[in-house]
Amino acid sequence: MDKILRIDVGAQGGPKAVETGLGDYKGLGGRAMTSGIISKEVPPLCHPLGEDNKLVIAPGLLSGSAAAMSGRLSVGCKSPLTGGIKEANSGGQGSQVLARLGYAAIVLEGKPSDDTLYKVIINQDGVKIEADNSLKMLGNYDVVSKIKETYGGKFSSLSIGPAGEMKLSAATIAVTDMEQRPTRHAGRGGVGAVMGSKGIKAIILDDAGCKIRKPKDPDKFKAANKEFVAGIKKHPVSGEGLPAFGTNVLTNVLNEAGGYPTNNFSSGRFEGASNISGETLAELETARGGKATHGCHTGCVIQCSGTFNDKDGKFLTKQPEYETVWAHGGNCGIDDIDAIAQIDRLDDDFGLDTIEMGATIGVAMEAGLAEFGDAQAAINLVKEAGKGTPLGRILGNGAEVTGKVFGVERIPVVKSQAMPAYDPRAVQGIGVTYATTTQGADHTAGYAVATNILGVGGDVDPLKPEGQIELSRNLQIATAAIDAAGMCLFIAFPILDQPETFQALVDILSGFSGEPVTADDVSALGKSVLKTERDFNTRAGFTSKDDRLPEYFRKEKLAPHNVTFTVSDEDLDQVFNW
Amino acid sequence: MDKILRIDVGAQGGPKAVETGLGDYKGLGGRAMTSGIISKEVPPLCHPLGEDNKLVIAPGLLSGSAAAMSGRLSVGCKSPLTGGIKEANSGGQGSQVLARLGYAAIVLEGKPSDDTLYKVIINQDGVKIEADNSLKMLGNYDVVSKIKETYGGKFSSLSIGPAGEMKLSAATIAVTDMEQRPTRHAGRGGVGAVMGSKGIKAIILDDAGCKIRKPKDPDKFKAANKEFVAGIKKHPVSGEGLPAFGTNVLTNVLNEAGGYPTNNFSSGRFEGASNISGETLAELETARGGKATHGCHTGCVIQCSGTFNDKDGKFLTKQPEYETVWAHGGNCGIDDIDAIAQIDRLDDDFGLDTIEMGATIGVAMEAGLAEFGDAQAAINLVKEAGKGTPLGRILGNGAEVTGKVFGVERIPVVKSQAMPAYDPRAVQGIGVTYATTTQGADHTAGYAVATNILGVGGDVDPLKPEGQIELSRNLQIATAAIDAAGMCLFIAFPILDQPETFQALVDILSGFSGEPVTADDVSALGKSVLKTERDFNTRAGFTSKDDRLPEYFRKEKLAPHNVTFTVSDEDLDQVFNW
Repeated sequence: MDKILRIDVGAQGGPKAVETGLGDYKGLGGRAMTSGIISKEVPPLCHPLGEDNKLVIAPGLLSGSAAAMSGRLSVGCKSPLTGGIKEANSGGQGSQVLARLGYAAIVLEGKPSDDTLYKVIINQDGVKIEADNSLKMLGNYDVVSKIKETYGGKFSSLSIGPAGEMKLSAATIAVTDMEQRPTRHAGRGGVGAVMGSKGIKAIILDDAGCKIRKPKDPDKFKAANKEFVAGIKKHPVSGEGLPAFGTNVLTNVLNEAGGYPTNNFSSGRFEGASNISGETLAELETARGGKATHGCHTGCVIQCSGTFNDKDGKFLTKQPEYETVWAHGGNCGIDDIDAIAQIDRLDDDFGLDTIEMGATIGVAMEAGLAEFGDAQAAINLVKEAGKGTPLGRILGNGAEVTGKVFGVERIPVVKSQAMPAYDPRAVQGIGVTYATTTQGADHTAGYAVATNILGVGGDVDPLKPEGQIELSRNLQIATAAIDAAGMCLFIAFPILDQPETFQALVDILSGFSGEPVTADDVSALGKSVLKTERDFNTRAGFTSKDDRLPEYFRKEKLAPHNVTFTVSDEDLDQVFNW
Repeated sequence: MDKILRIDVGAQGGPKAVETGLGDYKGLGGRAMTSGIISKEVPPLCHPLGEDNKLVIAPGLLSGSAAAMSGRLSVGCKSPLTGGIKEANSGGQGSQVLARLGYAAIVLEGKPSDDTLYKVIINQDGVKIEADNSLKMLGNYDVVSKIKETYGGKFSSLSIGPAGEMKLSAATIAVTDMEQRPTRHAGRGGVGAVMGSKGIKAIILDDAGCKIRKPKDPDKFKAANKEFVAGIKKHPVSGEGLPAFGTNVLTNVLNEAGGYPTNNFSSGRFEGASNISGETLAELETARGGKATHGCHTGCVIQCSGTFNDKDGKFLTKQPEYETVWAHGGNCGIDDIDAIAQIDRLDDDFGLDTIEMGATIGVAMEAGLAEFGDAQAAINLVKEAGKGTPLGRILGNGAEVTGKVFGVERIPVVKSQAMPAYDPRAVQGIGVTYATTTQGADHTAGYAVATNILGVGGDVDPLKPEGQIELSRNLQIATAAIDAAGMCLFIAFPILDQPETFQALVDILSGFSGEPVTADDVSALGKSVLKTERDFNTRAGFTSKDDRLPEYFRKEKLAPHNVTFTVSDEDLDQVFNW
């Protein structure tokens, strides 16, 4: 991982690839790499779909190594959705393979001179870029099938669906999983639209002949990794809940806690929750011959994924994540798990962010375009987005645009990005993260739900403002470091609760790099990433006024606890005062 | 003008009216009044369509008096289009009548409990508010007809069309002219959407029995007004060009200067300009039995308006303004004056801002929704907006939303509001105003075209950055004062060139109020308005980054002069440093 691949899509005669050394970016990985390049090279006031924006794809520092859970990929750009800096994070095989191919980053830059669509093929022999207009407007599943026909069975791919080609702000980049299905997505903030604006439909990665990345201090690394894996397996969340029921284990938990946003954030509890819970889902998956326990990339020891078959036992989609089940489920008043799974498949195929789309359909339902609870109407709306009709383009540009176009007042966004599956009134810590993270409303940026609801890493009352600032701050710092390492965020559960597991992570980093690494170094890394991102956003015109929830979270009480968001503006402005 | 009428549209049992004294707002008029109330009473981060926003309607300080040109009305709110403070200014009879009725402001506040539509009737007996759902989704022309049926021939009205009811961000408030036609509009920034969000369809004003407002020093006032009128009449722009050809006299002038934005700001000169020029228009109007010289309110001595009849000699619309002819004409590659007049009528009837709509259709054409030059397609697109189809709602929310939804890069907006009819590359002074005014791109906020192109008030090279900051600053200050006085902006031509005419204006203010007024007082008034507005915008999250033109104006050269916008960011940040 000692080189950067830059592809100038505006070069004469079509995209040209150049490999460079790491230069200023030496020592960076994952989110630290993407945000480092974006912050330094992209003018903050540029148009996100214009020639000055860049798309950066970077494996984590530990990706491609034998470190467990190290297969997360960072994708960065100036976001077409938020107008600020973006790091969208994905599982799947892409990160491991790209790292083994030796690339610390791929940078797509410039602006195509025409609308030819290209694919990029990277293997141990180098980089090829080929025009392929036969891929135009194909869904991700068809793209992957066509790649398979041409390149055989052994590859990983990053691709965009019609949403990315249409440059919709909810467009994702799909990353194939271990079964070469486009089920993992760099989902948030419209990174797929930026890839579309560069005229690149797919990046095909083949690491045949490449070796696993070797640690500098193999003994230390191996021992630490062993301890790390043991720690993950012994923690109740990462060792039991997630493997058994996937992320959707949270449906019952959040619903019970009264923090499950229902019918476009108008209630904190959903009547139909048990019909779409992780427990119900796992049972159904198993009954239909799917898997309820499965990993999304090699090296995963949590196995929170699964496969969802349709009523005929035929693969439909991966196990829908909690946030997807919520977004297209309770948030729209829908408790039909088959309909939700069908939408999950549609979103993956079109290349649309399930969180943004579910929140958007909730807003559309509030606008009267469909009734809450009408699953078929929701399916039809997602299909509109895939087709790119005027209505579909509205929806595919997310909750804020949809709310604006239809004159809706209650739009659950921060920095124009839709809120995920936790109501900030009943989980005030996540409200602090939504408000203040550089990314727009994003639960993964500082998952205070862990401590507010799951009792992991301490115990902070979810209904009160006390302690939430410090909690969110510390989690945001830790998360930025985890994202830089390429680690799956779910390692946060054991490392927050078990000091020896955290130490094992530090030792993995040290064993891999051969340099001394301390807990303070990890914290400093996280802070440095956040500082870089905040600086970009400031230069893009963001102020403390953007670090706020929509006013209705302070005015409308959320049932069943009848609470509003009560963390003060003054306190929110202290999150980055460390 | 010693009272404020406040209507709480959320009161139990329907809207309730309360009259108060002027309190903190004593001595304010027009834009000083609207911005004063908004800045003090509206939370800057509130939703523009929510209960915390207010709509303020205020006649100018001199409105309702015998002062010439004093009939301009200010309408203020937090703008649904820009998110910042808004003052939209209109001609027509409303200001004179409201002032004579004694109201310094009408404030619509709160949030309706249901979707009943109301009309407000104000006469010398007081205020009545009546539910009238028969007005729902009527165009402004039909609204006025219905009012006429009920209240007879003698009234002025403010009303919204379907666009306002649908809360579209390009929705206007129509003000009737002297012939009781809804042809004058508080056009910019979506003020009609805010009126729609308050559930008020029309405000009917009848000043029967009310007297003209009397000056405190009649002799001074009368003498000054005489001098003022003489000054207006002797200046070539206000005394000759505007009366003869209306504002559309500018088509040939701007086209000749290479600053006429053509085909969505891609060129500065339009081949078909002569077919839609003021000269051509006036000839056609006269030939069809319409008027080429006409006033929009009593007390107007410039008479820049007119009436446009269709081919059968039947009234179609008022004489379309230069900005309208440009927006729906050259900016869309259209040189068919009948088609443009038809669109002007549609916009007035639906209650849509002609500038925003023309710029939006230009963006839609760039997106491929229609060909540049296709007049019928443009008419169809405006009709979509009036119907409120999904496509129509996109368009009716303006150029920025349309560009975002369709993935267009070249969107000519500042602070989300579309640029008017002067390319900032070939008229750099107006570019400074577009960038820095509190209002979003707005030529009327500091009409540097006067000095850059018309040689009024000095002579500053339009293609160069030198002198533009000071020019725009001084014009913005003067304009804010003129808007507070309720004066028509076109008095700027004589008062900039003729010191005695400026002094006459100062003397009118002094004669009317009976207090000593100096030129410095006028300047101080303008500065105070701008300061109030800037303060609101800062609290709403605006920064210097919002005081910028889109990047392509610095990158793409404009034919025929092959110029880019070259005023530096550092200089732009000096506009409000006085």
